[in-house]
Amino acid sequence: MFCRLAKPNDIRTILQKSFSISSQVKNNHNHSHHQHPVHHPPHKVTVLGAGGAVSQPLSLLLKSSSKVGKLCLYDIDHTPGVAADLSHIDTKTVVTGYLGTEQLGPCLTKSDVVLITAGIPRKPGMTEDEQFNTNAGIVRDLVSAIGDFCPKAMICIITNPVNSTLPLAAEVLKKKGVFDERRLFGITSLNLTRAKAFVAEAVGCNVAKLVVPVVGGNSGITIVPLISQTIPPVDLSQESRKKIIHKLQTADTEILETKAGTGSATLSMAHAASKFTLSLLAAIDGEEGQVESAYVKSDETTAAYLSTPLLLGDEGIVKNLGLSNLDEFETELVKAAIPELTRNIQKGIDYANKS
Amino acid sequence: MFCRLAKPNDIRTILQKSFSISSQVKNNHNHSHHQHPVHHPPHKVTVLGAGGAVSQPLSLLLKSSSKVGKLCLYDIDHTPGVAADLSHIDTKTVVTGYLGTEQLGPCLTKSDVVLITAGIPRKPGMTEDEQFNTNAGIVRDLVSAIGDFCPKAMICIITNPVNSTLPLAAEVLKKKGVFDERRLFGITSLNLTRAKAFVAEAVGCNVAKLVVPVVGGNSGITIVPLISQTIPPVDLSQESRKKIIHKLQTADTEILETKAGTGSATLSMAHAASKFTLSLLAAIDGEEGQVESAYVKSDETTAAYLSTPLLLGDEGIVKNLGLSNLDEFETELVKAAIPELTRNIQKGIDYANKS
Repeated sequence: MFCRLAKPNDIRTILQKSFSISSQVKNNHNHSHHQHPVHHPPHKVTVLGAGGAVSQPLSLLLKSSSKVGKLCLYDIDHTPGVAADLSHIDTKTVVTGYLGTEQLGPCLTKSDVVLITAGIPRKPGMTEDEQFNTNAGIVRDLVSAIGDFCPKAMICIITNPVNSTLPLAAEVLKKKGVFDERRLFGITSLNLTRAKAFVAEAVGCNVAKLVVPVVGGNSGITIVPLISQTIPPVDLSQESRKKIIHKLQTADTEILETKAGTGSATLSMAHAASKFTLSLLAAIDGEEGQVESAYVKSDETTAAYLSTPLLLGDEGIVKNLGLSNLDEFETELVKAAIPELTRNIQKGIDYANKS
Repeated sequence: MFCRLAKPNDIRTILQKSFSISSQVKNNHNHSHHQHPVHHPPHKVTVLGAGGAVSQPLSLLLKSSSKVGKLCLYDIDHTPGVAADLSHIDTKTVVTGYLGTEQLGPCLTKSDVVLITAGIPRKPGMTEDEQFNTNAGIVRDLVSAIGDFCPKAMICIITNPVNSTLPLAAEVLKKKGVFDERRLFGITSLNLTRAKAFVAEAVGCNVAKLVVPVVGGNSGITIVPLISQTIPPVDLSQESRKKIIHKLQTADTEILETKAGTGSATLSMAHAASKFTLSLLAAIDGEEGQVESAYVKSDETTAAYLSTPLLLGDEGIVKNLGLSNLDEFETELVKAAIPELTRNIQKGIDYANKS
């Protein structure tokens, strides 16, 4: 079941190369701005579930990006107020609220990127299976509408449990004959954000200059940070690595418990999802070297979906940078993740096929 | 009562000059970064009322600024969860949550800037007087603690009604002998943000390149946009100007009604307050040309407090840029605002003196 794991790539080399390309592109953009201005049409980004606690700060961050020309907010409640609030911000992005299922089609039409945040957050004590039972139907219906109204859009699934909602979304799109594996992303960016924060805290280094790859899925033991491949390399004892891994794998639950029933990770999720979205828009605009990790269709392992670093381009995934050379410890962590991940994936597929 | 209104300054000239200085400073910073790095100690910014709907997105924006070294969050509820959530973001700012009145002192000690957002938002139908009755005691107690634990901090009052809570805060500080009118700001930035957005929408121009001064107070008819002094000048009929003024003066109520009891302006307020705070931190760091408007101690009119453009420096207000040459129509608007503003100010002063 694990035969496809070993790959000749050294992920660190690829990430460093991409990081270097990305820096060059950015520098070129700065220096040559007046000589070679590049104009891209403003993009339409649509947020489904826009009344929620993640999507409100997420929409705030997107409203401040010059890459977002139109920000369309859909939900079954709250969107007129959120849209009015955001429209008072002095940036060019035009914000429009759409309310209720009859406005879903107009909201989605011509979207370049659609973010799905709709659904319920977990509460303390709620399992991911319980959360899935409520959120599966919501994701199914929204993805079905995307297939009808903007089948070429890049789709980012934020609604948890992403391990299951992403495969579910893929099945829905397959049934409609519009599945494009390059354009469907389960957002796992918060794991990378957290891994950076936790490693920087443990090492005492500048978090801004750190890259910590994280692969696998989006919850519990399926989240596998590759600390051996951190850029720059960090010196951590095996005990410290284990502590960081445990902290990362239980971070969602830690936030749920610390918020004591009042919410889940919202602000950090908004930050991470915004970062992914802006990189994706940069890639659509032809900016080279955009590397982000997401949970996508994969042939790296026997699990049909896996989060790995991806090189992004104007049609979505250009190259899946894969798992690369895991060390022995990390290979075991990935092995341990696969059965749980496979079960989560099957749950999403089954839901799509039964309904 | 209105004898001190006329001033020889042309506000547009001053703003343009400041804008120009600011741009030069920014460009110099970009180009000479490697030759003349300027290092400033990371600042401690404290948010009081950090569990609330404005302060959560506000704290998210501050967590992403390199100017904020420490972000300390205080409230009587929710702060451990918000702080944990924010601490998972991969930026250098260190976030700490403080819970309950016994932690207020440690939270405030050594703060460079304190933002007060604590209190209740208005609900549809609630008057500002009713809101004041609840929020006055909260602001009084928090400002009193600031006077005890960090009397040299810059204080930004966001808790509404700012027309009254700011004079109340000044009285509390006066009683403690630590009032410094250069360091106490009522945050009115959202009015300027909105004025830019509304004028840009009416004219069809790029909002990012627009400056629309707004003076007076922070609610209803006390909010006076100076459309005659917009940079660059805009061509608007008197009817269009009146529409924009009405929209601006009723914007808070519009949001309350559109949100239908679920909240007030939160995301746009967070954006505007973050912008003010970052300009203030830049000024503290010695960056020249930082001009922001705020509601402060003033001798421009008979109203003891007034929002006008301010040139900021490392000790707070360097120069109050005042009302400058209002046109006849705007002079009438300011005149109409003064009695209401004076009443609001007296209410704040009376509360401080009776309690």
